[in-house]
Amino acid sequence: MQGATLVDVLNLTGTLAFAFSGAVVGQRRGMDLFGVLVLAFVTAVAGGTLRDLLIGAVPPDSVRDGRAAALAVATGLFAFCFPAAIARLRFPVQLFDAAGLGIFAVTGTQKALEYGISPLMAPVLGMLTGIGGGMVRDVLTAEIPVVLRKEIYALAALAGAMVVVIGLRLGLPVSLTLLPGAALCLFLRLMAIYRGWNLPLARRPDDSADS
Amino acid sequence: MQGATLVDVLNLTGTLAFAFSGAVVGQRRGMDLFGVLVLAFVTAVAGGTLRDLLIGAVPPDSVRDGRAAALAVATGLFAFCFPAAIARLRFPVQLFDAAGLGIFAVTGTQKALEYGISPLMAPVLGMLTGIGGGMVRDVLTAEIPVVLRKEIYALAALAGAMVVVIGLRLGLPVSLTLLPGAALCLFLRLMAIYRGWNLPLARRPDDSADS
Amino acid sequence: MQGATLVDVLNLTGTLAFAFSGAVVGQRRGMDLFGVLVLAFVTAVAGGTLRDLLIGAVPPDSVRDGRAAALAVATGLFAFCFPAAIARLRFPVQLFDAAGLGIFAVTGTQKALEYGISPLMAPVLGMLTGIGGGMVRDVLTAEIPVVLRKEIYALAALAGAMVVVIGLRLGLPVSLTLLPGAALCLFLRLMAIYRGWNLPLARRPDDSADS
Repeated sequence: MQGATLVDVLNLTGTLAFAFSGAVVGQRRGMDLFGVLVLAFVTAVAGGTLRDLLIGAVPPDSVRDGRAAALAVATGLFAFCFPAAIARLRFPVQLFDAAGLGIFAVTGTQKALEYGISPLMAPVLGMLTGIGGGMVRDVLTAEIPVVLRKEIYALAALAGAMVVVIGLRLGLPVSLTLLPGAALCLFLRLMAIYRGWNLPLARRPDDSADS
Repeated sequence: MQGATLVDVLNLTGTLAFAFSGAVVGQRRGMDLFGVLVLAFVTAVAGGTLRDLLIGAVPPDSVRDGRAAALAVATGLFAFCFPAAIARLRFPVQLFDAAGLGIFAVTGTQKALEYGISPLMAPVLGMLTGIGGGMVRDVLTAEIPVVLRKEIYALAALAGAMVVVIGLRLGLPVSLTLLPGAALCLFLRLMAIYRGWNLPLARRPDDSADS
Repeated sequence: MQGATLVDVLNLTGTLAFAFSGAVVGQRRGMDLFGVLVLAFVTAVAGGTLRDLLIGAVPPDSVRDGRAAALAVATGLFAFCFPAAIARLRFPVQLFDAAGLGIFAVTGTQKALEYGISPLMAPVLGMLTGIGGGMVRDVLTAEIPVVLRKEIYALAALAGAMVVVIGLRLGLPVSLTLLPGAALCLFLRLMAIYRGWNLPLARRPDDSADS
């Protein structure tokens, strides 16, 4: 029960964070009120919805439970009405995106395990839960998703997800696996942003002879 | 039975409308015959397929029932062969898109209710059924989806969807909820196009300090 | 049993081919190591995952069975570490993409038939299995998917898929339908690339009067 409450609180926090990041992107693109709300909602629920479809949890949380939708709409509305408050934050999209990433990576992993996904693939589904929202947000605004660009992003989500798998294997209580996992992901992601931590970049093959 | 027939007729009309809008976009981009057919098909069935996956109606209509595929291919073929007929229409994509939007918003809402989705979330699924086709069409042609740009679009779909929920709550027969709902959506959308009705645009936050 | 082993071998080969094409595209875009791995994985499994969701085979192969993920990651790692080996291939993306296309088109069709999809729609699902990986790869890198551009692509997949439906109807053993179907698709696709075979292009409607 305590675990369930914690997962719930985490998921609503992640929803808030991603809804905010989606709303801010919508605002920067000069979208209208409803465009901002739609982008906030889609960014907040896309990752979890994709995970639910893939593990067979249908209808997904986002459809069964109206709270995520209500929260995303409220967040979008707030961001729409108070742009000045947003302007004061230095890195609002990246910061909230990082929080959502960490939270959804761990709760997604835990739910995948609950539905009988193997410990090998559960972190992949957790990672997907984390990166899905940002991917859909970026695809919808015709950008190459942040996950594919040069900073540590999906790797941070995967690291957080693995903490959950290992922790639960060791028999630790849920709260002692979810919180450290989310914190690790958030830490790695913020280091990547502020300190410029990066993975090696691909040396591009010489493709002068190719189409 | 009468309700089922009406839903069927509406869905095939919506399929026709979205297939046409997809085919015209394909043609304008100078795609080949098969590209036009694929885009017509995908635009026509994407919204309903997404809804079916989300409410657990698997396999989705588009896979179980070959009529939508056949209709979309026939529509795409027509559009491909008679571009002059299309050139005579002033706003073909927007007009057919608006018709598909209204129809799918109401039939999508009704199907979601049938599958036990709550009256709060059913209109969201109806809206998604309506906007899904155009979203996928725009993403596949590397454009920011029309739903996120500045005219009343998703809001029109949501308004039509809400007519269905309220009408069925009041015990009205299906035809007296679906047709007015679709008509309201079409009206709002056409007003948005021809009269320039718009929602307020986001004031962009000052992001000079941001990345 | 022999059929099952063949399908397995084909699917792993297709996974390898698409993972390679995704990895090379990631490399050309200068992505980091993890971006390359994610793109390799997504390109390899997107088509089959979409098919599994649509036919109700949940969790999809890509989630149930870790081999595809492991193979895709290994392939991405290889491509990342040895860019010089890739530069020596003239058309690496197109060639591997064509192989994956043919293989997934036939195995996808066969699986759809197994799950009770009609012989009319099964080739469409086979085609989708084949084209899905490349579509998602292109959408994620903000390009118009190759399937919608001017060469014979989806049509080649559909032709291969139809060989499977017809072959199985005639009572031929699985291997005598899958291999010729995949070969036909590969042949058509390579002819389209090397010989410039094309379908007729759309004559663009005069849209000067349109928005």
